Amino acid sequence: MTDISTQMLELARRAKTASRILRAMPTEQKNAILLDTAERLQAARAKIQEANAQDLAEAKERGMSAAMLNRLELSDKVMAEMVQGLSEVAALSDPVGEIADMARRPSGIQVGRMRVPLGVILMIYESRPNVTIDAAALCLKSGNAAILRGGSEALRSNLALAAVFHEALKAHDASPDCVQVVPTADRAAIDVLLEQETLIDLVIPRGGEGLIRAVTAKSRIPVLKHYKGVCHAFVDESADIDKAIRVVVSAKIQRPAACNALEGLLVHQKIAPNFLPKAAEALHKEGVKMLGCAASQQFSPHIEAAADEDWGREFLDLTLTVRVVADMDEALTYIERFGSNHTESILTESYGNAQRFLREVDASAVMVNASTRFNDGGQFGLGMEIGISTSKLHAYGPMGLKELTTQKFVVLGQGEVRA
Amino acid sequence: MTDISTQMLELARRAKTASRILRAMPTEQKNAILLDTAERLQAARAKIQEANAQDLAEAKERGMSAAMLNRLELSDKVMAEMVQGLSEVAALSDPVGEIADMARRPSGIQVGRMRVPLGVILMIYESRPNVTIDAAALCLKSGNAAILRGGSEALRSNLALAAVFHEALKAHDASPDCVQVVPTADRAAIDVLLEQETLIDLVIPRGGEGLIRAVTAKSRIPVLKHYKGVCHAFVDESADIDKAIRVVVSAKIQRPAACNALEGLLVHQKIAPNFLPKAAEALHKEGVKMLGCAASQQFSPHIEAAADEDWGREFLDLTLTVRVVADMDEALTYIERFGSNHTESILTESYGNAQRFLREVDASAVMVNASTRFNDGGQFGLGMEIGISTSKLHAYGPMGLKELTTQKFVVLGQGEVRA
Repeated sequence: MTDISTQMLELARRAKTASRILRAMPTEQKNAILLDTAERLQAARAKIQEANAQDLAEAKERGMSAAMLNRLELSDKVMAEMVQGLSEVAALSDPVGEIADMARRPSGIQVGRMRVPLGVILMIYESRPNVTIDAAALCLKSGNAAILRGGSEALRSNLALAAVFHEALKAHDASPDCVQVVPTADRAAIDVLLEQETLIDLVIPRGGEGLIRAVTAKSRIPVLKHYKGVCHAFVDESADIDKAIRVVVSAKIQRPAACNALEGLLVHQKIAPNFLPKAAEALHKEGVKMLGCAASQQFSPHIEAAADEDWGREFLDLTLTVRVVADMDEALTYIERFGSNHTESILTESYGNAQRFLREVDASAVMVNASTRFNDGGQFGLGMEIGISTSKLHAYGPMGLKELTTQKFVVLGQGEVRA
Repeated sequence: MTDISTQMLELARRAKTASRILRAMPTEQKNAILLDTAERLQAARAKIQEANAQDLAEAKERGMSAAMLNRLELSDKVMAEMVQGLSEVAALSDPVGEIADMARRPSGIQVGRMRVPLGVILMIYESRPNVTIDAAALCLKSGNAAILRGGSEALRSNLALAAVFHEALKAHDASPDCVQVVPTADRAAIDVLLEQETLIDLVIPRGGEGLIRAVTAKSRIPVLKHYKGVCHAFVDESADIDKAIRVVVSAKIQRPAACNALEGLLVHQKIAPNFLPKAAEALHKEGVKMLGCAASQQFSPHIEAAADEDWGREFLDLTLTVRVVADMDEALTYIERFGSNHTESILTESYGNAQRFLREVDASAVMVNASTRFNDGGQFGLGMEIGISTSKLHAYGPMGLKELTTQKFVVLGQGEVRA
């Protein structure tokens, strides 16, 4: 075994050992650690920003883009958000130990489902070092040991943040192994970790599609991920035109780089003559570039011709595809083909069509008369989220504390045996 | 592409197409198909048993063991159980479409979680052809398309059973692609299917550890599995001795070949002098061979010395390991090391120890004063089960209809947008 193999195996084993303690850690102890970390982060701000400044300087030297440098920076604002996040996670109710569906069975035993931590969670992410604190907080609160592997360009920042978390852990009689940052930029480290299916229970990659595909291909551990967000709005024939325009425009422009921003507009042919000229005008006014089918172009000079490869593209900027469809069947078929199981919304005043859309569309969030931008843990009431899953196993949609746990069965008997 | 690749890809694509219809299939239609299949199975019994007789004859010629031949046989009793199973699944309530946790958020939108099918499920199993009907029924009822791959020795039986299911599907305007049996014994077929992560949503292997490890290693699709069941009972110092003996004896002998049968007995040192002589006598009377630690051997002449490799072994017969432990901590550590996350039971009259055991033991079912044999979908009230998962992601424990579904978020709005 190479040095890095030995080191990573050791790290994963320590996480596994810590997870056994975390499984039974009282809520008050977890909250105390989170709140203490928040306080210590404020006190250590200068030190952390110093480490971050070194990461930034090196990244700049290597020619990192301004946008990426911005993501890497632990500004005062980002530091304040981390502190705020820690208090928010402390305030969330602890999902561990909750027992559901307890019922007595004909045999006499009582059977229920108890919510328990998954065990050890490996987070692999890019750039933003604040994920280190957010992920550590969510893992700790849900009773899981965290192994955190951020971008190599953020290693100094991540280690500085983890050091603060470790101080708080130690101050509350908890092992620093509860939260570990992979202390090397060596890519071989990930490869070793992704093979530890007996030590690590879940991998969550967050970042570009390339990172996520690479992790999924290599991992022997279950992976929760979303590749991309290609979200659509379908304006049904019965839509309220003003309401539909408001929702569509906002879903596109409110934060175009987000994964839940609108990328494609589908319009029922019967409403297209009344809806599209006004909608295209409103979108154009906001600087949105529209790429449409031939039918859609009839209704507005602002709609350019779309190329074949534009359908189903994740633009992540102010570009939108526009397509006129014959009916709801065509809309559903289009979404099935070009959607990414992320977020789909129908604009309609028809009860039946709303029900059908909700039932038949396969996406982590399916909406009626609402902006796709609502697909978010905070907006959905989960508290902070650790990511959005477009995989269907275990979690589908925003992942909060509950999604970092599982349910085991518990049986309360009085000496019962099988007949 | 080879012929088998083309054929399997085509089969998986047809399953995916069928899954879109199944997603929205009314409950009455699904139930009608199940009940019709039950009727048709009875009518076609002679034909099915003829196909089964050919499988049996060929297996016998190849020297298959009597136990395996027994599993392969579609006797009148097994046929009757399949018919009964179909009616039971028809009687279960349909999980699809159920909406939970619907709540209004500060933004005005209402958010809830709707239970939806996973999509396409690939079952890989050995020998018992009745799994073909059981799995098809559970997949159909939960709105999933099924791809069924049984043992090559059961191919004729499985195809005959599927043919009956197809008649019922067609008679109720449903595509036969809802339930497909892989029509070849070629092992390359599985390899191709396990790569179709865009077409197949879940793989469930059922059979020996070898099969399950091979599937897990190759699959690019999420796998739900359990490798083995190494279940323990811990007789705590406060246990009621008669109750404990009754539970331990029954858990061991009631069906020793089952995965939830008892394989290891842990005894608190304080209760050992009173418990072990009587317990060992009772077990010995039932023909149980006991392999114990040195301390345990002091208490009964029936306990032989265990070898190192006996701890944590899945015997699947009338053999049991016996170990005296110093305290609950040692019992928990032993279970953590030698258990298989399947089923663990404590015999105790102490409230605190019961609570601690329930909280700290990591197993799909954790019990107090009850036989490990209760870890079963039917006993837990899930209706029929498709297997028991000792994986923690998505499902942990017996998997019934609910475990073959996932939850997506649904949002009901009135034109809301993000601020």
